Amino acid sequence: MLAEIITIGDEILIGQIVDTNSAFIATLLNMNGISVKQISSVSDDRNHILKALDEAKERADIILITGGLGPTKDDITKKTLCDYFKTTMRFDEDVYQDVVKIFNAYQKEVTPINRLQAEVPSICTVIRNQNGTAPGMWFDRDGKVFISMPGVPYEMKAMMQNQVIPKLKEHFKLPAIVHKTILTQGIGESYLADLISDWEDSLVQDNIKLAYLPSPGMVRLRLSTKGDDVKTLNNVVDKKIEELKIIISEYIYGYENFGEETETLEQIVGKLLNQLKKTVSTAESCTGGYISHLITKVPGSSDYYIGSVISYSYEIKEIELGVSKDLLEKQGAVSQPVVEQMAKAIRTKYRTDYSIAASGIAGPGGGTDEKPVGTVWIAIATPETVISEKFLFGTNRERNIQKTANAALNMLRKELQAKISGTFICE
Amino acid sequence: MLAEIITIGDEILIGQIVDTNSAFIATLLNMNGISVKQISSVSDDRNHILKALDEAKERADIILITGGLGPTKDDITKKTLCDYFKTTMRFDEDVYQDVVKIFNAYQKEVTPINRLQAEVPSICTVIRNQNGTAPGMWFDRDGKVFISMPGVPYEMKAMMQNQVIPKLKEHFKLPAIVHKTILTQGIGESYLADLISDWEDSLVQDNIKLAYLPSPGMVRLRLSTKGDDVKTLNNVVDKKIEELKIIISEYIYGYENFGEETETLEQIVGKLLNQLKKTVSTAESCTGGYISHLITKVPGSSDYYIGSVISYSYEIKEIELGVSKDLLEKQGAVSQPVVEQMAKAIRTKYRTDYSIAASGIAGPGGGTDEKPVGTVWIAIATPETVISEKFLFGTNRERNIQKTANAALNMLRKELQAKISGTFICE
Repeated sequence: MLAEIITIGDEILIGQIVDTNSAFIATLLNMNGISVKQISSVSDDRNHILKALDEAKERADIILITGGLGPTKDDITKKTLCDYFKTTMRFDEDVYQDVVKIFNAYQKEVTPINRLQAEVPSICTVIRNQNGTAPGMWFDRDGKVFISMPGVPYEMKAMMQNQVIPKLKEHFKLPAIVHKTILTQGIGESYLADLISDWEDSLVQDNIKLAYLPSPGMVRLRLSTKGDDVKTLNNVVDKKIEELKIIISEYIYGYENFGEETETLEQIVGKLLNQLKKTVSTAESCTGGYISHLITKVPGSSDYYIGSVISYSYEIKEIELGVSKDLLEKQGAVSQPVVEQMAKAIRTKYRTDYSIAASGIAGPGGGTDEKPVGTVWIAIATPETVISEKFLFGTNRERNIQKTANAALNMLRKELQAKISGTFICE
Repeated sequence: MLAEIITIGDEILIGQIVDTNSAFIATLLNMNGISVKQISSVSDDRNHILKALDEAKERADIILITGGLGPTKDDITKKTLCDYFKTTMRFDEDVYQDVVKIFNAYQKEVTPINRLQAEVPSICTVIRNQNGTAPGMWFDRDGKVFISMPGVPYEMKAMMQNQVIPKLKEHFKLPAIVHKTILTQGIGESYLADLISDWEDSLVQDNIKLAYLPSPGMVRLRLSTKGDDVKTLNNVVDKKIEELKIIISEYIYGYENFGEETETLEQIVGKLLNQLKKTVSTAESCTGGYISHLITKVPGSSDYYIGSVISYSYEIKEIELGVSKDLLEKQGAVSQPVVEQMAKAIRTKYRTDYSIAASGIAGPGGGTDEKPVGTVWIAIATPETVISEKFLFGTNRERNIQKTANAALNMLRKELQAKISGTFICE
């Protein structure tokens, strides 16, 4: 089954916006067993759109169109689709009620130009827009399907996920597909691949495909399989995940089902702290507030996050975190005793159950032979103990900050999870 | 002059990566007076690529191709271009030396597969790759130009900016074009448009086009004009910028010439602090470390940034920043006296020349009728005084954090700039 995506609108062609819609649509289609043959961005021009539709129809079974439906350039896409399918417009009362509902919510009157949004090509099946005023449209022609959606990402995504994909599955009787993603942290893609190569080789027997999805400091592993019955597929995939857990349990920080937003480490840490009714504070040097920022990005984080000392200078480390001048001079700020002292001090000072401390050389300056750029010490103080670990990241300042924050959150996560699973039951 | 962009590679079609290259190329082309007619992403397939080249040639004068040149799928794009132009491969010694140089830098041997990267279609003009091993290629055919570039953004961008654009300008004798961008902060797009509408109307006389480029908390204004002589164009644009300064000087925080990276507020603040040889500290509540993160993202920020107290709880505001319990209870944490006390306290405690404090309701919870979500107080303590300002941002937590940080940095910038220009000369 082949699809093509056509995005209509000059914003993409002048480079004003990056086309993120196509990647979203392509991912959803691929995850449902539909390959994308071509993605085309074309101008708001009748003849150009007609030609693009003709070319796409030659190559694909499903043609998905986004954009060109806003009230200001309403005419172009819809009128062109009318021409293409040799049909005329009709007024759709349901769509009009959707438009009225949205305008009412903003306590505004529907203007004549907005009323036009309820006009659709007669032969199309309307796809109602739950988040905006421009309706989606579904056309059947010569065994092929054409779907037009609004270009606003928020509106398009909901329509694609909740309505278009289910309708395509039904229409083309697509096989059942199951995807599950394992979230890992603290191991690079190539090391991970080495570690799990035997397990990876065994996937073929169960007709499971594996994708590595790396981002700074973390790798997501996506397992996909297709067949007749979702329940059977789920069982097969779950069995493989259980096998994987035995090999790399220490690196796994979460799982993600198809269609879910990826849960971030800071969200998981927040949930664990809430579950344990514990609090956390941070003492940051090289990360300069980034760990705190990640923690406080999560709504409701004030329930467990108390605050931080960002000790960018030696003086603040001494005065606010009680790191002795002697220690700083002899061992340097990027050292195990300093980072452990920082973690202990902030935990006591801010009266929290847990604390995170990080000190490192983010770069580009400040590196030495002994401690090159990317050297980072991280410590976690818990009610029972202090643990610390040394890392050597790369040479890029921003990535070093990100990787340090992720590694620190992951160290805390492991402590919290061990607590929950009872490793420290006899504290 | 019309161009088309063809990106080759399955990563985009399966949705694994978002095509940011096309937006970059489209922006550069448009800024040089070349319109983009269509952008197509096609699969790594010979016939599909040949068809895409034919279709693009029908519509455009310049066809830019990216991707499909990496060593693992080296063959596809280059071999297909050979077929398309009915030519054969030749070994290019210059390209080979570029490959050798890059491998030497990593202290690695050139493998046979990498040696193949020095093979190029005989009739092409090579565009040397200064940042990678895959060369760019330029083909002339029937008055049209075809350019193939690597897909790695870092390599493509340098090649496009430094080599392809100048060569296209020369080849097609494109007019001189001047762009200048004014960076504004603290005023929304529609208010800005109202304020400068007369000035905007006057631009047409000088054949200047204006583009509004908004992002959270800031709007960039890009002026563009074309003609015969760069110097004359520069003068015309500079005159208009001088007129604009009179109207909106308080909102302008910087300028950007064509091709330059946008200077961030935190970079500008860092430069000003260095110039004045002054230091800064922060006391953050609702921003949870994001202001510190922005400041410390800038390399060398340890020269002027000392540290921060992130006082997420009432207790830390009391104990670490001396905000009285009485004040917190009567006025609330999001109030002028609290944020001013925070700024004064951190400046004294961390012994800095300047300080920033922010306290607000980021949302989604915590809002009241009197202080809805998005209410933020920001204070700047200087050697002379404390200034503070109330803001009402939106309902989105992440954007509220970003907007607060930008507004705070902008308030500090204005103080520093006033200092430099001597407003406080009689301190």
